[in-house]
Parts: sequence; structure tokens; C-alpha cells
Amino acid sequence: MNSNAFRNISYGVYVISTWDNERPTGCIANSSMQITSDPATIAVSINHANFTNQCIEKSGRFAVSILAETSDPSIIGTFGFQSGKDVNKFDSVNYEVKGDMPIVTEACAYITCEVVNKMETDTHTVFLGKVQDADVLSQESPMTYSYYHKVIRGKSPKNAPTYIPDEKQEETMEETKEAKYVCSVCGYVYSGDIPFEELPEDYTCPICGKPKSVFVKQV
Amino acid sequence: MNSNAFRNISYGVYVISTWDNERPTGCIANSSMQITSDPATIAVSINHANFTNQCIEKSGRFAVSILAETSDPSIIGTFGFQSGKDVNKFDSVNYEVKGDMPIVTEACAYITCEVVNKMETDTHTVFLGKVQDADVLSQESPMTYSYYHKVIRGKSPKNAPTYIPDEKQEETMEETKEAKYVCSVCGYVYSGDIPFEELPEDYTCPICGKPKSVFVKQV
Repeated sequence: MNSNAFRNISYGVYVISTWDNERPTGCIANSSMQITSDPATIAVSINHANFTNQCIEKSGRFAVSILAETSDPSIIGTFGFQSGKDVNKFDSVNYEVKGDMPIVTEACAYITCEVVNKMETDTHTVFLGKVQDADVLSQESPMTYSYYHKVIRGKSPKNAPTYIPDEKQEETMEETKEAKYVCSVCGYVYSGDIPFEELPEDYTCPICGKPKSVFVKQV
Repeated sequence: MNSNAFRNISYGVYVISTWDNERPTGCIANSSMQITSDPATIAVSINHANFTNQCIEKSGRFAVSILAETSDPSIIGTFGFQSGKDVNKFDSVNYEVKGDMPIVTEACAYITCEVVNKMETDTHTVFLGKVQDADVLSQESPMTYSYYHKVIRGKSPKNAPTYIPDEKQEETMEETKEAKYVCSVCGYVYSGDIPFEELPEDYTCPICGKPKSVFVKQV
């Protein structure tokens, strides 16, 4: 079996949010799809290890904020590379409450759902949500996972089904003889025009916001 | 609720195939996603009205052929706009048997699965498949639904969750004062350089293969 085949499945990049009692929380997911059109239902797949999973279980509700190509990649760092158990993720992004659910303002569209069914697997729960509210927020193109991977040069959080361990990921990168600077927290590969060494000391990773010092040199 | 929000979810274009006893059959789906990575599982959503649904129920197996941007759009016509009850869809495409399943040769990758769980909805079954075999067949870019819609100018089959009835679809089209020629079978909008009237009489729709005569003029 060649698991590289899975990388040909197309995904978007979504913030799946819900309430932890009265506090908004959420995580990043690539796995969201519409299942039926009338009534409209949406399935999302969330790892058991994500705090968001147990919060959706309790609240019985979730929202999908569909990120755009123009959305700030730090939203992915905030929601994808930290746990809502430890931090209030919504403190560092602009959000609004729509259809009684917390929605990332920079999304190009949102969908709010009430959980009507679920399917368990070894590591993930597939929640089926009946759509309660939905709207388009901007005309920006939705961010695809391929865009995130190729243009923003981000990778998958460890809990994502699309996660590829480091040693395998290396094989898929373009060959280059120059040294790469890689964020050791989220895996972002620096690709700016200024040589990495010349960046100011207060430079932070555009994905996860961690300081310049967590970057490691790879040859 | 503004259902245009759903159009911001990203999808690929897949042939979901299986066996009808010893005959290969299948249909087009946009809704496929990886759910877990170890063991690898894939979920696909298939309308109850698709003959493929009952064949997957019986055989307990399905395959996902991931179409590429370069795949012949007539594959979508063959699998998306006809029923496997009436025709042998695999008669008109090149296919191979991989991992004991029929695979479209022009796909850029394939995944074969054994059904291990399912979730029922009003109109669709979400089948969860444990991956048996998978491979990459070419380095072509996978076709996204957005590419199919915007570049090939195709639309969704009636049984797809992404289907938008004609009157709604019209609102989303670019404004143009020129007449459009639309295939009345699959909805393909002719966009070639030669004026439609001047096309040879044996011109056929590149999506569903139906003759020039089924095209209707829309202003």
C-alpha cells in the first residue's frame, strides 16, 4: 500500500468550533463534507485527542468556519498547534457569534450545525450535523489543503488524518541544496526573500507565532 | 440560511466503484475523505438512489479512483449522468483491476477499501472503508470540484449533495450578454472558440457524450 495516494484527496482548511460551557473553543480540520442537501447536513471528523471532540459531545453543536486563501495563517497555528484545554484560542483571533456559535471573522463562509448522528472510529469521531445557519462572509477563494501545503508551506497537526511523520514528509519535499529553516513547533518552512539569519530577532513563525529561536536549520 | 456557503467546502472528483456480482460498476462522488491514518480509513457518501449504493452494500467493498485535472471529462459523464442499472459504465472507459477492484486507468491515484462501518442519513449512506490497497498512478494534479465547475464548466449530478437546481445555478453564473449553449442532459456549458452553430453535426458533449442536438440555447 502506498499511502502517498491519500494525498490526492482534496480538502479545505476549516476551524471547527463549539462551546466549552460558555467559553468558545475549536480546532483545525481538513475533513468536512456535505452529506445531504435537503435537509442540509455536514459531516466533520475530529480526533478523540482534540479537546474540541469532547466539547462537541457535551454541547451537541459545532460550527465550520471555512478559511480563505487570504486568511491569516496564524489562525491555523492558533487552532491547529495548541490545545483548547491550555489556552483560550479565541482570545487571539477576531470572532463573532452567528447562529449562537463562535465564528472566525476572517473566514469566507460559515456553517453552524446541531449534531444529529455520529460514527466512531479508532481515533476519530465523525459527527453528522444538521445545518442551522450558514452564510457567505467574503468573496475570497476558499483555502484548500493543497494551497496551505504548497503556498503557505504548512503541514498537518499531529492529530489530523492527513498527518505524515517528519521522515516521510522529507521525502516529498522538493530537492534543494540550500539549508532550510523549519519551525520546530508547527513545521513551517521559512521561504521569505530575506536570508533567515538576517531576520530581526522579534521575527515570529507566521503559522504558530513562536519566536525565531524555535527554528532549526536543516540541510 | 444561505446555502451558497456550502459551495466554499473543497472537494475532489472521484469515481467510486464496486462489483455488481461479477460486473464492475460505479458512480461519481465529490464526498470522500480520510478519517483515520492508522489503520487508514476513508469515508465516502453515496446517495441511496445510486445503484452503486446497493452494490457496495452487497459486496462490502468499494474503490476510489481519484480523477486528475487531465482526466477525460467524459469519464464524469459516463459515471455521473447515467445509471449502472441501465448501462455497463466500465465498457466505455479504460480500467484495470487493482487490489481485486475495478479502477479507472486515467485516475491519478486509487484506494481500495473494505466496508467496516456505515452511517445512514435521509438520502445518503456514509460508508467507512478500511484501506486494503492504494497507489499513485500519475503525477498529474488531482481534479478539484472547483476546477471541474470553473474550468471544465460542469455541474453536479442530481444525486450529489452539492447539486444546485437550475434556477439557483443561474444566479451564480457570470453575467454575459451572449447566448450560451447548454447540454440539456448534464448541464455542460459550451465554451469553445468556434461558434456553437458552426460545430460539425457529429459534435458530442465532452461531459456526457450526448449529441449536439440535445444542446439548448440560453440567453
